Amino acid sequence: MAEKSALESVISLAKRRGFVFQAGEIYGGSRSAWDYGPLGVELKENIKRQWWQTFVRSRADMVGLDSSVIIPTPVWHASGHVATFTDPLVECLSCHRRLRQDHLIEAYEEKKGRAPENGMADIACPNCGTKGQWTEPQNFSGLMKTFLGPVDNEEGLHYMRPETAQGIFVNFNNVVTAARKKPPFGIGQIGKAFRNEITPGNFIFRTREFEQMEIEYFTAPDEADEHFKRWVEDCYNWFVDLGISEENLRKLDVPEADRAHYSAGTIDLEYKFGFQGGAWGELMGVANRTDFDLTNHSEASGQKLQYFDQTTGERYTPYVIEPSFGLTRAMMAFLIEAYHEDEAPNTKGGVDVRTVLRLDPRLAPVKAAVLPLSKKAELVEPSQKLAAELRRQWNIDVDDSGAIGRRYRRQDEIGTPFCITVDFDTLEDQAVTIRERDSMQQERVALDKVRGYLAERLLG
Amino acid sequence: MAEKSALESVISLAKRRGFVFQAGEIYGGSRSAWDYGPLGVELKENIKRQWWQTFVRSRADMVGLDSSVIIPTPVWHASGHVATFTDPLVECLSCHRRLRQDHLIEAYEEKKGRAPENGMADIACPNCGTKGQWTEPQNFSGLMKTFLGPVDNEEGLHYMRPETAQGIFVNFNNVVTAARKKPPFGIGQIGKAFRNEITPGNFIFRTREFEQMEIEYFTAPDEADEHFKRWVEDCYNWFVDLGISEENLRKLDVPEADRAHYSAGTIDLEYKFGFQGGAWGELMGVANRTDFDLTNHSEASGQKLQYFDQTTGERYTPYVIEPSFGLTRAMMAFLIEAYHEDEAPNTKGGVDVRTVLRLDPRLAPVKAAVLPLSKKAELVEPSQKLAAELRRQWNIDVDDSGAIGRRYRRQDEIGTPFCITVDFDTLEDQAVTIRERDSMQQERVALDKVRGYLAERLLG
Repeated sequence: MAEKSALESVISLAKRRGFVFQAGEIYGGSRSAWDYGPLGVELKENIKRQWWQTFVRSRADMVGLDSSVIIPTPVWHASGHVATFTDPLVECLSCHRRLRQDHLIEAYEEKKGRAPENGMADIACPNCGTKGQWTEPQNFSGLMKTFLGPVDNEEGLHYMRPETAQGIFVNFNNVVTAARKKPPFGIGQIGKAFRNEITPGNFIFRTREFEQMEIEYFTAPDEADEHFKRWVEDCYNWFVDLGISEENLRKLDVPEADRAHYSAGTIDLEYKFGFQGGAWGELMGVANRTDFDLTNHSEASGQKLQYFDQTTGERYTPYVIEPSFGLTRAMMAFLIEAYHEDEAPNTKGGVDVRTVLRLDPRLAPVKAAVLPLSKKAELVEPSQKLAAELRRQWNIDVDDSGAIGRRYRRQDEIGTPFCITVDFDTLEDQAVTIRERDSMQQERVALDKVRGYLAERLLG
Repeated sequence: MAEKSALESVISLAKRRGFVFQAGEIYGGSRSAWDYGPLGVELKENIKRQWWQTFVRSRADMVGLDSSVIIPTPVWHASGHVATFTDPLVECLSCHRRLRQDHLIEAYEEKKGRAPENGMADIACPNCGTKGQWTEPQNFSGLMKTFLGPVDNEEGLHYMRPETAQGIFVNFNNVVTAARKKPPFGIGQIGKAFRNEITPGNFIFRTREFEQMEIEYFTAPDEADEHFKRWVEDCYNWFVDLGISEENLRKLDVPEADRAHYSAGTIDLEYKFGFQGGAWGELMGVANRTDFDLTNHSEASGQKLQYFDQTTGERYTPYVIEPSFGLTRAMMAFLIEAYHEDEAPNTKGGVDVRTVLRLDPRLAPVKAAVLPLSKKAELVEPSQKLAAELRRQWNIDVDDSGAIGRRYRRQDEIGTPFCITVDFDTLEDQAVTIRERDSMQQERVALDKVRGYLAERLLG
């Protein structure tokens, strides 16, 4: 039997322990979206908080925004999405399955090592096997529609945003005025986006409903390149600082043909997710959107989205550098990177294999678990009291069930940095034993010092 | 001229200072949704954090969840939303405007003080004035549709959730198993919901896209009433603790006819928003959903959403108590409550009217502003250094523009609890002057004590 990959192990752990559930699983589930369980929601929240703290709150040149999913339809005409946010779709004449033409050609090339000589005539339907029987390709929109108001007609037609970015661009003047900002400055936003992907897949990697963390950074045109380079480094360093190892992270200068319609240059950060048929996948991208969006919205809306520099007396349309992160792709990378199987001593003097998530303490969904050595009230009560005190600051588990070694294993595999054991000595010495996840080192700490002990090691 | 109400003042302040912008304003805007600017996103985030901390993280009987907006369509059939989440709509035969029948009747009753004797025959169209010319009422669904996959047909038809609650119910078994919870316990969730309201309005009070903070609390059926009462109190106290005054908050026992289809009892908390034509509005509600949802999903999915109590050997379907909050309604209430106009001394020895948002420091979007007394580098540099240090923990402004009194006013009206002035003495005594927002009292504090000074007063 082939060894399970870290990716497969993480997917199975994520479901079992409540990081990620299939959306609507009791009704057969959906590949469009996933639900985040008690641990998943905390991990996701911690990633968001780290991102917001690093890229928005701690920087004097950044502010935040939270724009809506459904904005007026003209936005998506001006942005180019209605016209160009499409994929070429072909239908098998035999079984009527619809598939993306570019994906069929890519799969052929990967298998044969060369392009199909006779175009689609060489390609067999992966569903029914019929060869070369395809309709002409049709452009299929990746925008999801909805209808507002009392009737489902053109008047009520709206799109659900496929990116949070446009909500930032159309608020450019509002933010400049209200927050009194001048370039170079940026606007950060975290929020949901929706794309009608033909083939969602790879767990939480490609879904129709997803969360973005985007920055639109406005600069003078002649400073755009310099800021572009700096943002690529800042993004790279953010992942490394939070635990992504450099051998699993690489930069890809995206060739012009593969770039989005608005981009004059894109560098993707790719992570080695370990997918079948291509280990690396896009983690995030930094694009130079130039003045494409602000110019288009200025023309379409009749409002000047420009900056007037009072010191030089010059009016100009800023260039935009866009670092765009997929939140759940980041979460998936942190989980895969953290996943380890190593050895831990067992009670028989030997060693057992243990699963441990070596998550950065800032990301760990549970910061500490309080473990009363027995279920007796004299230990459970002080444990709950300690947990209640620590909960004022952190997400804390209490687990009183099973052998202590088994309880350590349960916490290790969800990445809990510290286990705090309340034992019968605690009643005498008013101290507890704190075990660190990675080193498994234990230390005796006075009850009234536990909070400080954790604060120092959890980095806030 | 009539005095401006607190509501009107807050709406104007919110736009001017960047709490709330009209969505897609440069394209004429939308009443369906609003965008939250640099201050709005921080205030909203602070409300969420307080809610999550109080109701989820600090409680041993609660866990969190983040389920998706688009879930399989059978969920909405089983929940009763496809059949019953509708409003009666009539169309004026003359001008073809469509309107909600119940709203037309309510407006008539409010104006005349009695019900229309001859039904719709008595009611004139508010758009064109034609009297009594209406189509028969038709049920209009409040669900927003979208289509997934390559074709817009029944197969691809999905609904955007009108409440986050159902995502919790369908994950009941997942959470019980993964988080090892037993009743009484609850699941909390914060997320977007979408309703095709015919008449959105009253600023951010009724929008088509909105954010909920919901708890589904699962209890043994015979304990449901007791938990219901406790949750009403807990919710009420949460608002009061964060600054809502009791004279602006009241409980309403919702009559059966006005309850949602799933509710066996609802108590709304109403806030005195000060709307024209009815000052009070629903802030949040606590409903007893009984076993309605779990039973319906069990029947429809064939999965038993029940709890097996190992101590009694009994299997039962838990009752559900649902405290359901509207995030932006809470934000609106906190803003209106905080809005004050009082008097502040001016430089001429007299007093000026000042606008001040007396927000609880935990909610204030900016925790402190650093104000260099002059624009000279010798003051601006230490100011930026201090701000950078404080930004590791809080959202901090630096403002070096205009007279110090004017800068205080700017911070007062966005609710910044502390202004820290860096003056020429600072260069000598390594201290700054800290002014508190409400009392306007000033204190000299050593630079290396500023962080501790704020930490004590900002409550984290």
